[in-house]
Amino acid sequence: MPDESPVITLLTDFGTADTYVAQMKGVILQKCRSARLIDVTHEIPPQNIVRGAYALGDAFPSFPRGTIHVAVVDPGVGSERRILCAVAARQFFLGPDNGVLEFAFRDTRLETVVSVANEWYFSERVSTTFHGRDIFAPVAAHLALGVKATRLGPAVSDPVRLELPEVTIYTSRVGGAVIYSDRFGNLVTNIERQHLARVFQGAKSSQMLIRVAGIEIRGLSRSYSDQEPGTLLCLLGSSGRLEISVVRGSAVDALEPEQFAPVEALKS
Amino acid sequence: MPDESPVITLLTDFGTADTYVAQMKGVILQKCRSARLIDVTHEIPPQNIVRGAYALGDAFPSFPRGTIHVAVVDPGVGSERRILCAVAARQFFLGPDNGVLEFAFRDTRLETVVSVANEWYFSERVSTTFHGRDIFAPVAAHLALGVKATRLGPAVSDPVRLELPEVTIYTSRVGGAVIYSDRFGNLVTNIERQHLARVFQGAKSSQMLIRVAGIEIRGLSRSYSDQEPGTLLCLLGSSGRLEISVVRGSAVDALEPEQFAPVEALKS
Amino acid sequence: MPDESPVITLLTDFGTADTYVAQMKGVILQKCRSARLIDVTHEIPPQNIVRGAYALGDAFPSFPRGTIHVAVVDPGVGSERRILCAVAARQFFLGPDNGVLEFAFRDTRLETVVSVANEWYFSERVSTTFHGRDIFAPVAAHLALGVKATRLGPAVSDPVRLELPEVTIYTSRVGGAVIYSDRFGNLVTNIERQHLARVFQGAKSSQMLIRVAGIEIRGLSRSYSDQEPGTLLCLLGSSGRLEISVVRGSAVDALEPEQFAPVEALKS
Repeated sequence: MPDESPVITLLTDFGTADTYVAQMKGVILQKCRSARLIDVTHEIPPQNIVRGAYALGDAFPSFPRGTIHVAVVDPGVGSERRILCAVAARQFFLGPDNGVLEFAFRDTRLETVVSVANEWYFSERVSTTFHGRDIFAPVAAHLALGVKATRLGPAVSDPVRLELPEVTIYTSRVGGAVIYSDRFGNLVTNIERQHLARVFQGAKSSQMLIRVAGIEIRGLSRSYSDQEPGTLLCLLGSSGRLEISVVRGSAVDALEPEQFAPVEALKS
Repeated sequence: MPDESPVITLLTDFGTADTYVAQMKGVILQKCRSARLIDVTHEIPPQNIVRGAYALGDAFPSFPRGTIHVAVVDPGVGSERRILCAVAARQFFLGPDNGVLEFAFRDTRLETVVSVANEWYFSERVSTTFHGRDIFAPVAAHLALGVKATRLGPAVSDPVRLELPEVTIYTSRVGGAVIYSDRFGNLVTNIERQHLARVFQGAKSSQMLIRVAGIEIRGLSRSYSDQEPGTLLCLLGSSGRLEISVVRGSAVDALEPEQFAPVEALKS
Repeated sequence: MPDESPVITLLTDFGTADTYVAQMKGVILQKCRSARLIDVTHEIPPQNIVRGAYALGDAFPSFPRGTIHVAVVDPGVGSERRILCAVAARQFFLGPDNGVLEFAFRDTRLETVVSVANEWYFSERVSTTFHGRDIFAPVAAHLALGVKATRLGPAVSDPVRLELPEVTIYTSRVGGAVIYSDRFGNLVTNIERQHLARVFQGAKSSQMLIRVAGIEIRGLSRSYSDQEPGTLLCLLGSSGRLEISVVRGSAVDALEPEQFAPVEALKS
């Protein structure tokens, strides 16, 4: 019999110095000992919903069907904000109704969104300050045990959505924005492979000119190691997005872009 | 057959940049492949036994019966200090005899404390500098395999106890202390729900005046999001303790309390 | 039936703030749900192959037979550099061909090294920037499922080797170097127990004089707690290597050694 242990991922802004994440895991294991617990990250800057949404959006496509993703970036904990469960891409997504599940909502395979209201699946005592432990964790465990998402509460048609910078496509230009940077100082933009294809299909790489933070970069490189150390370059990163990098250096340090700094890819 | 894989938690001051934690996990898996390994935290400040004790005390109540907690904050490694195994709350606790298991000893369901002396359960070669790998890990694995705590060594009646600030309860006042802060800058005190109940039962929230670090806060809030950003507030946190918080800010930065800063809750 | 779930360890320079590590884990679990995933560390300084090699060398001896170690410190990702799989010490080692597997190659039980070239075991789409997710993770999963290393590609006789400081042994002196420091500020050297035995067999500890960074320390201590707080001391650390420590302090801060600072142990 194949091992079909359920996979539950955790994404929070709790950090790993406190014991909050461990408490969530303990509660899950109390109810579902076979759950495979995977940390997506716990270093989302405190209460930064946008960063949490991008991180979850980047991570979930690598996970198997049936995975339960728990995203607790929740400045409104204890208020009347709802908790949502989305089913998309044959995976489950639990998060507060503040936009952190944005990329589940955007997925073309979105099936349903429900409000998690059925207290039957909560812990017996629910604190007002730590729903991660008292609601999210036990609900995730119940999903792992096979409870249907529709049992958690009523369908929701108006989840809170994030206003994120969008990509605009012109005849010979794609406009977008830097959405975040990673540990290596790479600047990740919201311009995806398919956006570039619309303008640059059939063009040579050298015909692409990228403008960001006052500088220009010509051509798309194939990898981070393509050029001399210190060189600024552009490439399509691992999530299929245009990135700006410095070979063996940091584009963040080199360019110091502001939040959502505009990026243009021009055909010339 | 339900999955009853044993759960082993690890709490250390090792950090995660070095490979010490991984070495402990490798040794456990050598002896007990089915163990579910959960990190409580590895970011206890080096050799800070008090912080380790509070962290373990906060975390263990969320874990299932039979969980084996391994707490290695051990400045005396290699000295003659004992290693203890406590059985409390139907869970197991392994730690050096320096107070890090304080909250297991305080648990009303404490069953026994033994000195871990039976070298049969240690690794074959025991270094003088890394008992986490050479003693704690293999002993935890043996507990996970079903070895009784009483097999580990003789009962102990005089474990080292921590002197922690205690709560004092007067007719119209509860006195306590800030015991630590968390990632969000919340100040966690040792004043618990039941302490407040003794003085404030039946009183209105607005009758409670909290004094800490030279400031006063009136009333208990329900959650972190109860008031305007920047507001100082008090609430009962997720471990049932009185906390001082700044809405979407940091009470640590706002108040800069000294270690074990006194806190008073007055009825007025 | 004993639990023989395969163990896969991950060592990277990805940090834990981004989702790269989680993406690797998701891909592994897609192919091998029963894999036990253990983080060795993700805090190797970016692109620091030497530090990665030492970390893997320190960690693997604690793991069970059959463990699959994945080491992704890979500044050359997307270039023509090979990916290697070594079989040594009855464990598997996957890494780029840049020296990060150095201590697998040095192991006396090295069986084989192959170039990971068989795309059958890769993900369907391989990016040029994230082989950790697209090659290393699926190949590790296939090894976990029982695929033989020799199926991955042709044998390799010329892996890239690291030039590390070596130990020299004279009649009454052992010369080595500081190779790294740990979280506690301990300086770890490349001088091992057996090197010292060659010179100091039969000698008293007080006959050993250690010189490092302009200071001298006499004698080998047994443990970190052997002497008064603040004392500089030498001992044999948990990996069997000579270490320089400050009791309850930091030898890094005290001595500020340069990289690969020379260390001498003299008989006198």
